[in-house]
Amino acid sequence: MSYNTFGHLFRVTTWGESHGPAIGCVIDGCPPLLSLTEEDIQPCLDRRRPGQSAFTTQRQEADRVRILSGVFEGKTTGTPISLMIENTDQRSRDYGDIASTYRPGHADLTYDLKYGIRDYRGGGRSSARETACRVAAGAVARKILGPDVTIRGALVQLGPHDIDRTRWDWNEVDRNPFFSPDAAVVAEWESYLAGIRKAGSSVGAVIEVQAEGVPAGLGAPIYGKLDADLAAALMSINAVKGVEIGDGFASAALTGPENADTLAMQDGKVVFGSNHAGGILGGISSGQPVVARFAVKPTSSMLTPVASITRDGTAIDVVTKGRHDPCVGIRAVPVGEAMLACVLADHLLRHRGQVGG
Amino acid sequence: MSYNTFGHLFRVTTWGESHGPAIGCVIDGCPPLLSLTEEDIQPCLDRRRPGQSAFTTQRQEADRVRILSGVFEGKTTGTPISLMIENTDQRSRDYGDIASTYRPGHADLTYDLKYGIRDYRGGGRSSARETACRVAAGAVARKILGPDVTIRGALVQLGPHDIDRTRWDWNEVDRNPFFSPDAAVVAEWESYLAGIRKAGSSVGAVIEVQAEGVPAGLGAPIYGKLDADLAAALMSINAVKGVEIGDGFASAALTGPENADTLAMQDGKVVFGSNHAGGILGGISSGQPVVARFAVKPTSSMLTPVASITRDGTAIDVVTKGRHDPCVGIRAVPVGEAMLACVLADHLLRHRGQVGG
Amino acid sequence: MSYNTFGHLFRVTTWGESHGPAIGCVIDGCPPLLSLTEEDIQPCLDRRRPGQSAFTTQRQEADRVRILSGVFEGKTTGTPISLMIENTDQRSRDYGDIASTYRPGHADLTYDLKYGIRDYRGGGRSSARETACRVAAGAVARKILGPDVTIRGALVQLGPHDIDRTRWDWNEVDRNPFFSPDAAVVAEWESYLAGIRKAGSSVGAVIEVQAEGVPAGLGAPIYGKLDADLAAALMSINAVKGVEIGDGFASAALTGPENADTLAMQDGKVVFGSNHAGGILGGISSGQPVVARFAVKPTSSMLTPVASITRDGTAIDVVTKGRHDPCVGIRAVPVGEAMLACVLADHLLRHRGQVGG
Amino acid sequence: MSYNTFGHLFRVTTWGESHGPAIGCVIDGCPPLLSLTEEDIQPCLDRRRPGQSAFTTQRQEADRVRILSGVFEGKTTGTPISLMIENTDQRSRDYGDIASTYRPGHADLTYDLKYGIRDYRGGGRSSARETACRVAAGAVARKILGPDVTIRGALVQLGPHDIDRTRWDWNEVDRNPFFSPDAAVVAEWESYLAGIRKAGSSVGAVIEVQAEGVPAGLGAPIYGKLDADLAAALMSINAVKGVEIGDGFASAALTGPENADTLAMQDGKVVFGSNHAGGILGGISSGQPVVARFAVKPTSSMLTPVASITRDGTAIDVVTKGRHDPCVGIRAVPVGEAMLACVLADHLLRHRGQVGG
Repeated sequence: MSYNTFGHLFRVTTWGESHGPAIGCVIDGCPPLLSLTEEDIQPCLDRRRPGQSAFTTQRQEADRVRILSGVFEGKTTGTPISLMIENTDQRSRDYGDIASTYRPGHADLTYDLKYGIRDYRGGGRSSARETACRVAAGAVARKILGPDVTIRGALVQLGPHDIDRTRWDWNEVDRNPFFSPDAAVVAEWESYLAGIRKAGSSVGAVIEVQAEGVPAGLGAPIYGKLDADLAAALMSINAVKGVEIGDGFASAALTGPENADTLAMQDGKVVFGSNHAGGILGGISSGQPVVARFAVKPTSSMLTPVASITRDGTAIDVVTKGRHDPCVGIRAVPVGEAMLACVLADHLLRHRGQVGG
Repeated sequence: MSYNTFGHLFRVTTWGESHGPAIGCVIDGCPPLLSLTEEDIQPCLDRRRPGQSAFTTQRQEADRVRILSGVFEGKTTGTPISLMIENTDQRSRDYGDIASTYRPGHADLTYDLKYGIRDYRGGGRSSARETACRVAAGAVARKILGPDVTIRGALVQLGPHDIDRTRWDWNEVDRNPFFSPDAAVVAEWESYLAGIRKAGSSVGAVIEVQAEGVPAGLGAPIYGKLDADLAAALMSINAVKGVEIGDGFASAALTGPENADTLAMQDGKVVFGSNHAGGILGGISSGQPVVARFAVKPTSSMLTPVASITRDGTAIDVVTKGRHDPCVGIRAVPVGEAMLACVLADHLLRHRGQVGG
Repeated sequence: MSYNTFGHLFRVTTWGESHGPAIGCVIDGCPPLLSLTEEDIQPCLDRRRPGQSAFTTQRQEADRVRILSGVFEGKTTGTPISLMIENTDQRSRDYGDIASTYRPGHADLTYDLKYGIRDYRGGGRSSARETACRVAAGAVARKILGPDVTIRGALVQLGPHDIDRTRWDWNEVDRNPFFSPDAAVVAEWESYLAGIRKAGSSVGAVIEVQAEGVPAGLGAPIYGKLDADLAAALMSINAVKGVEIGDGFASAALTGPENADTLAMQDGKVVFGSNHAGGILGGISSGQPVVARFAVKPTSSMLTPVASITRDGTAIDVVTKGRHDPCVGIRAVPVGEAMLACVLADHLLRHRGQVGG
Repeated sequence: MSYNTFGHLFRVTTWGESHGPAIGCVIDGCPPLLSLTEEDIQPCLDRRRPGQSAFTTQRQEADRVRILSGVFEGKTTGTPISLMIENTDQRSRDYGDIASTYRPGHADLTYDLKYGIRDYRGGGRSSARETACRVAAGAVARKILGPDVTIRGALVQLGPHDIDRTRWDWNEVDRNPFFSPDAAVVAEWESYLAGIRKAGSSVGAVIEVQAEGVPAGLGAPIYGKLDADLAAALMSINAVKGVEIGDGFASAALTGPENADTLAMQDGKVVFGSNHAGGILGGISSGQPVVARFAVKPTSSMLTPVASITRDGTAIDVVTKGRHDPCVGIRAVPVGEAMLACVLADHLLRHRGQVGG
């Protein structure tokens, strides 16, 4: 990973600002002869698209993706795939007041400290709008992984409210506006988040992503570990403050025997008695489902005033008007899935390079 | 990061197996004219060295580092710094029985699944012995960061037992065998860990690392975020299962106002009312202390038998004899510090490259 | 360099096929606060643009570049600069017959052998049209290098006809359709190339590029040598078959004393008695002008029939109709300049990263 | 390539100075299960070793390589292979006078300009001694390529004296001290070089390297072209000033019909009527032999005095005593072969990664 490029063999370079003419990405290193059209990518973007429920920003973006290169007669050619999404609903005036103000929790201050300049319109490059490109790239990554690898995500905590994991049902995830796998928690979350929103506040969340069918052997010691790359990929998503694999932080409180995933042979295959490890041992996939979670902080843009300063150092109370998600964690679900797909696709190619088919 | 190399401009490539003749690393991209001798590195290695208390492995390694290149008359020359540490106490026979057995929780199985071969002696490449090279590299990284950047680490949770953060005292860290900043918890931990050890068990831990004096502006959007690279660096340490920045997973349960770090001007400088963000905003350092925590799972090597299989698929109960840390998290403290130093040094050079001095 | 990305800190990823909707590039790592508009880039593109004389292809491309990101209010922001050039004159039908035929000297066969698929329209990705993106990136690279670095190129050999170096005049280069620095050779070249063209043939060329004002210290041993990166950059241009620095291949025939560039002090500065080395010693710039030459083979597309095969193995005589340059080397002059600028800009940032301002 | 690391998937990082305790390299990304012992590497080193004829330096180095990691029971494990060669005959005093003097044609001046410091003993890092590590890495690369790929090199020009290509016999190469494939030219070269040596002078050379049996499809457009990477790899060898592929610079003087390599089918395979292209089309191997040449300048170290300056700017006539090759090009033959092997191995893995077995 380097600046705006993700990956080593499956490489994704994203570009664009929230309120520029367009955003996009260039995918390099994609294997040839995969069938790919805009229709393969659009559904993934639609899942992330804003304005679909009362709990996400009302900004209306069609988010129509165009393939500009790298695909010929419906198949990838092995050359760079350039994807572009035009920004249609920019409403720059909504954000005009942030030109000279540092919004706490945002990158406004640090961009200025680093670069001495920033495109302040809608957060510019630091806007979560960039994640649309990740989702588009993730759709291509899934093509590389093929139909045997299933990548899914769900919201498992909204603010202080957890799901009940015993009620986990993947089928529920797309039936509610929270990507919740627990149907019973939805009403509680709706009520809670409506209150948060009404109060001009916001709240954090935890997302879980899983990949089933991952072949054993992906990832490499020592600095190319699958979990290390996954940690970077998930942490690089806007507003993410923590990443864990398998039992994660909970494993710190376990004893060795409690944490041990036993091994046995069954029908000629290695089977595990449990999956505390989250499918990764020594940085290498074991064949078990890869399981990761990441924590998203509360949306920093909110109607509650926060003490801050202007660019010239004057004290000011910041209230961020405009259209914002009261919980950015919700729309982070398809983004997390996409990053998991990208990491796995990159490692699949890297593994094949070193070790062969 | 790529396989066995960490970093982009400050690049560290480590090599070596637990029971080979030596381990080492090559540091490329180090600025010239830094004063550097073996005496700068050795104290860091000594902090990580095994055999120093009843709570770490009794393997005796002198861990004497030799500088083989890149330093001339006590100063770095800008060319690769080759560091080597000979393995002196290898006792291969202790580990002979793992040649054909997969130890649950270890990389034995996944190395075989990936490569079809593994150096099983003492865990080979997947042994935590590799972390000695990280610590050595971290000592060089600190030289690049200079005396104004202070990097420290501490154990904040041992098994289920937290420290009391109100008693935090950095001076205590080196006065007890746990790197605990809370003197009062030490007796409790000693008793607890003695019990774990006696039971032939093991336990996990949580480590916190901090960097003070970090200049603002390090890190870069989008895939070169300081927190993303830090997440990868810490997750790449053996047995780590989770990483968080600032409030981390706790921030998911906060509301926006609770999580907001207010800004104000004081003596011509930007000051923050709190540091929920852990010193990083939009992937870029803000000038506040960088704060990260990581969770280490319980040592997988233990005397408690665990159901497993041999290489040819026969069921077997694995008991890992030999000399092991009942809590590998303890010795991970200097390793975490080293990785934080390496990430910061790399980003310091990268920032200087793009933006200038 | 990796697939479709050039550079390490100044990174350029190009995309697009000759007859797709557009071509473009993403420039990552550009320093902030450089003034940049489309008007800075367009003149460079116009020099490379086809259809400007009888000696280049009659394909008419406006080659209008658009900046889609990374520039705000006329200044670079440090975020990715996305540049796009629409393909306007595609005339796909001109090239329809190459769908199933391998044109000798082209990448048709090898793309098929590698990928099993190729976008055959106008050469697809392997078309020299990609070099427009290099030229656009070179314009940005020149901004990084600043006004003290002068980068220029010239055609020094057309087919078997050399220039007379004693008549070298940089002012002549833009006064003739060959980028010749020797005014007296132009008439001879016109006559020669008109004959080549009339015969349905083509011819090769040698281009020389120079950079004056390059600061000493750019480049790095061993695999990051300035001349090694320059060799790769120039060799990566379509149809290039050779690269040399300073005296190049001629130096093989020299003795040590003949080849020695003496050193002396003059006005407190190091001065050289000659520049056989081409401004690079041990892979590092010496402060002298950087001088490189590269050889371009004859255009493979020509009206003269060449024995070849179809995709299914049938023998066929290939005659490439359409609009082609009888000497692609001519338009390679601004491309060579651009690659030299890109290499120097990348090394300027890399040097600053390791060693400081 | 980056500073001291070569390659992308087959990565070689070299370290060490001419007169330090040792030199070495770390090879990362090597496929597992290749048989490898020191006996596989030593013969390659022995071909490059100095002191074997009157025409190479009389420095006596045993150049015994040790494998420190990455090989277990005679087989590669997929983890980093650390190779080390101790410096045994350092005689630092021979070189003491170069501490404060800039030898024209050497990297002395530019290292000082870049780093402000240099290890002056025997040229330090810029010594051709580093090429021993390239040769060692090349031996491993050959293992990856397997027995079907044959890589060979020969000296084709010594000073102004060419070989006669009609007399080319690969069997002659190892029968004379020049690696000449033309037995008849040897006497002439011996006499010529003896004269050069006696005069305290030196001379340049041209080396040709070839790889037969290279599978089609290696290399990738646009900046990952096989010929671009090969150009960088060969140009990165000490004293190299030019690189060409196939007909190289001669192709500039050819017409399209003269340069065309016709295609035909024979026994179900594509065959070429000639190999002007040197086995590479559009940056991708065609299945024909890969052919490259590189020019080496005359040894800069010689007994003939050259005007220069000291570090403090005083004029001085430099005479380089010590033990030097009158033609460093001779020992560059095995180095060129090694770099060709490394480039091909890296591309083999990269190709397999993207496209599969």
